[in-house]
Amino acid sequence: MKSIVIAVDAMGGDNAPAVEVEGAVAAARKWGMAIVLVGDKVRIGQALANHDVTGLDIRIHHASEIVTMDDSASDAVRKKKDSSIRVSFDLVKQGQAQAVVSAGNSGATMAAGMFVTKRINGIERPAIATIVPNLKGQSLVLDVGGNVDCKPVHLEHFAIMGHVYVRQIMGKAKPRVGLLSNGSEEKKGNELTRETHRLLKQLDLNYIGYVEGRDVYSGDVDVVVCDGFVGNVVLKVSEGLAEAIGTMLRQELKSRFWARIGYLLSRPAFQAFKKKIDYAEYGGAPLLGIRGTGIICHGGSNVKAMTNAIGQAADSVQKAVNDTLVEQLHELSNQPDAAAVVAVAGTK
Amino acid sequence: MKSIVIAVDAMGGDNAPAVEVEGAVAAARKWGMAIVLVGDKVRIGQALANHDVTGLDIRIHHASEIVTMDDSASDAVRKKKDSSIRVSFDLVKQGQAQAVVSAGNSGATMAAGMFVTKRINGIERPAIATIVPNLKGQSLVLDVGGNVDCKPVHLEHFAIMGHVYVRQIMGKAKPRVGLLSNGSEEKKGNELTRETHRLLKQLDLNYIGYVEGRDVYSGDVDVVVCDGFVGNVVLKVSEGLAEAIGTMLRQELKSRFWARIGYLLSRPAFQAFKKKIDYAEYGGAPLLGIRGTGIICHGGSNVKAMTNAIGQAADSVQKAVNDTLVEQLHELSNQPDAAAVVAVAGTK
Repeated sequence: MKSIVIAVDAMGGDNAPAVEVEGAVAAARKWGMAIVLVGDKVRIGQALANHDVTGLDIRIHHASEIVTMDDSASDAVRKKKDSSIRVSFDLVKQGQAQAVVSAGNSGATMAAGMFVTKRINGIERPAIATIVPNLKGQSLVLDVGGNVDCKPVHLEHFAIMGHVYVRQIMGKAKPRVGLLSNGSEEKKGNELTRETHRLLKQLDLNYIGYVEGRDVYSGDVDVVVCDGFVGNVVLKVSEGLAEAIGTMLRQELKSRFWARIGYLLSRPAFQAFKKKIDYAEYGGAPLLGIRGTGIICHGGSNVKAMTNAIGQAADSVQKAVNDTLVEQLHELSNQPDAAAVVAVAGTK
Repeated sequence: MKSIVIAVDAMGGDNAPAVEVEGAVAAARKWGMAIVLVGDKVRIGQALANHDVTGLDIRIHHASEIVTMDDSASDAVRKKKDSSIRVSFDLVKQGQAQAVVSAGNSGATMAAGMFVTKRINGIERPAIATIVPNLKGQSLVLDVGGNVDCKPVHLEHFAIMGHVYVRQIMGKAKPRVGLLSNGSEEKKGNELTRETHRLLKQLDLNYIGYVEGRDVYSGDVDVVVCDGFVGNVVLKVSEGLAEAIGTMLRQELKSRFWARIGYLLSRPAFQAFKKKIDYAEYGGAPLLGIRGTGIICHGGSNVKAMTNAIGQAADSVQKAVNDTLVEQLHELSNQPDAAAVVAVAGTK
């Protein structure tokens, strides 16, 4: 990974820049990629002074502004031109880095990626994908970003992007792609899914048709396609329910003497379970469809999540997710102008 | 409850008519309402012979046909005119019963309710609501039925119906009504939620604005309003995740000796927790917006769920959910013809 350079937005997360810096040092030590920490040079320098960086290729690139969680996505990109997130993507555009990792405002990250590096030709809307643990491994749900009002063609592109990501990164030869609906029968669905279903059946993907909400966790589908509104609901309902189950279970366990003893004995099992569903193990959410690689991390990411996200970004670059996507668009897309589209995208 | 008559579709569930009959006997014994078991008189008679019905007002009303899970909703209503579900609603229309309980095809139940008893004037789309347990009690999510492509006015009606149900049945004076969105800030949402948000702000409800998926389980909102597509995803994702968490946790617990001992000691706590989230404790899902009371049960309902659903139906009749809804529509609705609408509805 010597030749791969990752731009890390050092000012994004809730505990920036400490977590970003520590994660960068750990990732560089583990995998050997070069890292550019983007943001306030004084604060990053102070954080970096706490670590031994002997033999690591870690640089600082100064950026004077910070996009906050309250900034609107477009304002952040247009008004704060020297923000750490925008400058990170500038480095990708200028060829000084191949990927961006940020734990900042995800809407702004998506907007900056689109604005600076542009979309891959043929992709109308970039998407944010999330890796979720399931009974048999992991699946990818997209979009979970801001594409709240989608057309069928947008969902078609999400399906292609999800297919490519899962094949290249998760190593599944023929990812099962499903369209999230309110039932698995063909007569189910809404206006959006019915037309999308028609489009997806025409593609040379391993499209398994409609899947239901429960399939997100069954492990019977690898790529779950939905619009960003529904994807957000899927993630937030899951977070809320998992927390509620944890809280209720703890209450019941603590209110009984023997159960309390039992809980103490079972603790290693609970911890192993927690590790299984811990997002920090997976890193971040890939931003797909832009001419560059982006990994968006949870604002509250810890060092482990940040480290894994940087590794994940380097993996995406190494496994050429974007180039493969351009090729696949050429092969799969049923757009009449697909060839022309790909010729332009290929010049990137 | 002597004067209340509940029509129970005895042929609907996976274990019909045994579960329906046993549930009816238990409910009549517990609360004293009259029950009409609708369906095949021979099979119901055989099932009823296994129980002591001394002192109970339980009758059989023959219906020769059964709507299966494979029947389409409209075909079921139009083609199978002597089906147990349609005949159950006929009894309500004729004044021989005040409510229907069915564990059959929920789309057909909704269609039969609409077709036979008609909608309450002023309500464009009836909805199916589900009671979900949360950290502080219970909340109501609607629609979880088949309204997949909704207009803002439909969601407005769902909000009003949810408000009335929670106030009358759950006894909360000022139910907090939230609109499910992809974030709590006003700038979030899609086309549907933005316009609905505008409508709901004008109503004299305790409308708290956008809520997120995680709020379904936080206990900070009493009525969660969404379209039927999103509502279905909320429920199915929840079911799938709860099952997956249970399975993964059991695997971890069983793979460790001390954890296994711990699990045995903690079992009463796990059982108490299970009871807390068991839908059988709540009965069924109220069908709101028709000129009659309908409770739709899970196809796999057990006797407890069926018993509780019958009790719930009687409770809705006794607490005059529908009459209150008509009054509230009059007071709350900002439709120009609300008064006329309610005058007609009131003649029911």
